[in-house]
Amino acid sequence: MVAHDTFAPFLALLAFVWIAAKLGGECALRLKLPSVAGELGIGLALGALHRLHPGFPSLAGNPSMDLLGNLGVIVLMFAVGLESTLPQMMKVGLPSLRVAVLGVLAPMGMGLAGAFLLLPAGTPFLVDLFIGACLCATSIGISAQVLKERGAGRSPEGRVIVGAAVIDDILGLLVLTAVAGAVAAAGAGGGLPWGQLGLKLGLALGFLGVAFTLGRFATPHLFRLANRFRSEQVLLPMALGFAFLLAWLGSLAGLAAIVGAYAAGLILEPAHIQMLEDRELHRLEELIQPLVVVLAPLFFVLMGARVDLAVLLAPRTLLLAGVLAVLGVAGKYLAGYAASGGLRAPVIGWGMVPRGEVGLIFVATGSALQLNGQALLSASVQAAIVGAILLTTMAGPLGLAWSLRRAGIDGSGPSGSLH
Amino acid sequence: MVAHDTFAPFLALLAFVWIAAKLGGECALRLKLPSVAGELGIGLALGALHRLHPGFPSLAGNPSMDLLGNLGVIVLMFAVGLESTLPQMMKVGLPSLRVAVLGVLAPMGMGLAGAFLLLPAGTPFLVDLFIGACLCATSIGISAQVLKERGAGRSPEGRVIVGAAVIDDILGLLVLTAVAGAVAAAGAGGGLPWGQLGLKLGLALGFLGVAFTLGRFATPHLFRLANRFRSEQVLLPMALGFAFLLAWLGSLAGLAAIVGAYAAGLILEPAHIQMLEDRELHRLEELIQPLVVVLAPLFFVLMGARVDLAVLLAPRTLLLAGVLAVLGVAGKYLAGYAASGGLRAPVIGWGMVPRGEVGLIFVATGSALQLNGQALLSASVQAAIVGAILLTTMAGPLGLAWSLRRAGIDGSGPSGSLH
Repeated sequence: MVAHDTFAPFLALLAFVWIAAKLGGECALRLKLPSVAGELGIGLALGALHRLHPGFPSLAGNPSMDLLGNLGVIVLMFAVGLESTLPQMMKVGLPSLRVAVLGVLAPMGMGLAGAFLLLPAGTPFLVDLFIGACLCATSIGISAQVLKERGAGRSPEGRVIVGAAVIDDILGLLVLTAVAGAVAAAGAGGGLPWGQLGLKLGLALGFLGVAFTLGRFATPHLFRLANRFRSEQVLLPMALGFAFLLAWLGSLAGLAAIVGAYAAGLILEPAHIQMLEDRELHRLEELIQPLVVVLAPLFFVLMGARVDLAVLLAPRTLLLAGVLAVLGVAGKYLAGYAASGGLRAPVIGWGMVPRGEVGLIFVATGSALQLNGQALLSASVQAAIVGAILLTTMAGPLGLAWSLRRAGIDGSGPSGSLH
Repeated sequence: MVAHDTFAPFLALLAFVWIAAKLGGECALRLKLPSVAGELGIGLALGALHRLHPGFPSLAGNPSMDLLGNLGVIVLMFAVGLESTLPQMMKVGLPSLRVAVLGVLAPMGMGLAGAFLLLPAGTPFLVDLFIGACLCATSIGISAQVLKERGAGRSPEGRVIVGAAVIDDILGLLVLTAVAGAVAAAGAGGGLPWGQLGLKLGLALGFLGVAFTLGRFATPHLFRLANRFRSEQVLLPMALGFAFLLAWLGSLAGLAAIVGAYAAGLILEPAHIQMLEDRELHRLEELIQPLVVVLAPLFFVLMGARVDLAVLLAPRTLLLAGVLAVLGVAGKYLAGYAASGGLRAPVIGWGMVPRGEVGLIFVATGSALQLNGQALLSASVQAAIVGAILLTTMAGPLGLAWSLRRAGIDGSGPSGSLH
């Protein structure tokens, strides 16, 4: 084997992380929490282990693990995009849009206010704004999983939650582009160069517009060409190639790579690939699921491992995390009332509470941004936001389960079975 | 995204390699060759493109691509191992064993003799021996695919081919351990320290022995434990974790990491994981296939990209490649006659001809070994062996199809359809 000396130990580390992630996810499930919370927790523990015993391998500093984790989140967002189509998104309509917009603005504003009040005087406004932005995006994966677990995915409230979470994802990622752009612009010049920001937003929206029109027009032809292949396994490499190309093009347009991957998932409709799916006897979502199952937990474990527990447990940080979590829950709960039309607001509100991968990506982006020569998010602020995300991730499913039971929409009984 | 600047372009490169690999595989299929030959060819072309235009990204020098390719071959060998069980291997019996043993010894001896005659005088004996060893292992993947394509997988000849290829794989990998150990020992001391070599072989065989007894005893318990998990997707991460741990342990015992992964596949029997498979509604082989489809072509493309075409096309190298290929074909053809018992020798012989991943791993190992301070295999010798493997890979399926048709075992007619 090439690079045998470092490769075989990496295999052992990977095996260890998989088994640990599964154990953590299992503990979370038994506590009626989504498994992603357990994976983050395992990451936290492994990170702490490395900090206490430097002989224990570092996950956060391992470039191979970083690569696989980053691939994991790209594949995850492509798979999430595949669950919806553009026309379906058009149909979920106004209540979803209202919930999504208020569900982005309210937690963002409340988080901004909380950060403004709690952080030391003289903290740049953009730091407060970025902290607020980290609270804006619901994790569609977590929401959808809880609804599935509780047999409420086809209730009107369930549909609005998923619809709003889809829009919310795009809004959140546009907010990320805008806020990150503002930080970069402020670092370069000083004030907020609105023209440049507008250009950046225009470029990002333009990419999405072109992807959703030209891309949607081109994909049926692309996959009809692929269908002429005699090779047995064309669908997955071609679909992934398509998603990765869009991720790259999106990043050229200033968007996060995951936005392009998500857009690729929305664009790809079952009709485009049905011939290939029939021939290969598996649906694309079935083919992609093993990649998600194997790679995405690495991303969550890594995000946990990046948190320095010693920093998070400092009283000031813990206070900030707690306040941000409460504000994050309150903002989303409020947004539930924007649905109106006889829908049960608490169910929708609690359904929007869990934050997840997108919030963590905000933190990762913020940790890489510079403002006036300093990291935009200090280690303690990063730890506080990740702590707040962990808390909402754990509070969300509990609140959703409780509100579903109160509203009588709970289809599966109190067992919380996964089937 | 972390490391955003290098990560997004890597996504584009990955997409490009997947699409190119599929196109190369498709061209090969249309020429009635196995797709792996096309993927190697695409790698050759992309490598040449980089050497001509250094602005074109290098595949062979990309550590991320190297990581994914290495993971690909590990996962491939685990999947190949899953196709057989230990008791099935016991049952394939004596004809397979005879074909495997002669099929390793004959091409190895003939390759050694060819290298001895063609390479400059004074070339160390171990170089000739290593070149011979590179010709000994049949690619079970290629053989099995051709038999499946031709609808001959359940003929007695087909069974002997697959059985012999399985044994041949282990023999080949033991030969690799022995020859690589001899090279390391010779570099250290001078002569062949048989004691040390015996110890090394004993350690490797001991690992396999323990894996096949203790491992087989432990896995049912391990997966019964995993079956207690409430989490929905346990099987794949647990199975991969098991395979990667065995790959690592095997490497500690001096074996190539793929041997451990292959052994893990042999040990894992359907009965051990059936409860998990039933619960997750997919067989492990189905879950692992997408990983193989996505990762393994990267390994083949990389192997092609490592060949310097300018070196391969030098007359001396081309001569060596041609002679090695002819000797490699002749040695395996001869081995077909070891089956006896009324079986059609030419079918079996041609079935053993295609070389593939294992031969390429020999070359990769040889390129990393040092003898007297120099690389064991020079660039031109490496290029010649890869050239010979390419030629047998292309000749094998043609010869097998021809001999099947002559013997009247061809089940699917002349179309070469994949179904």
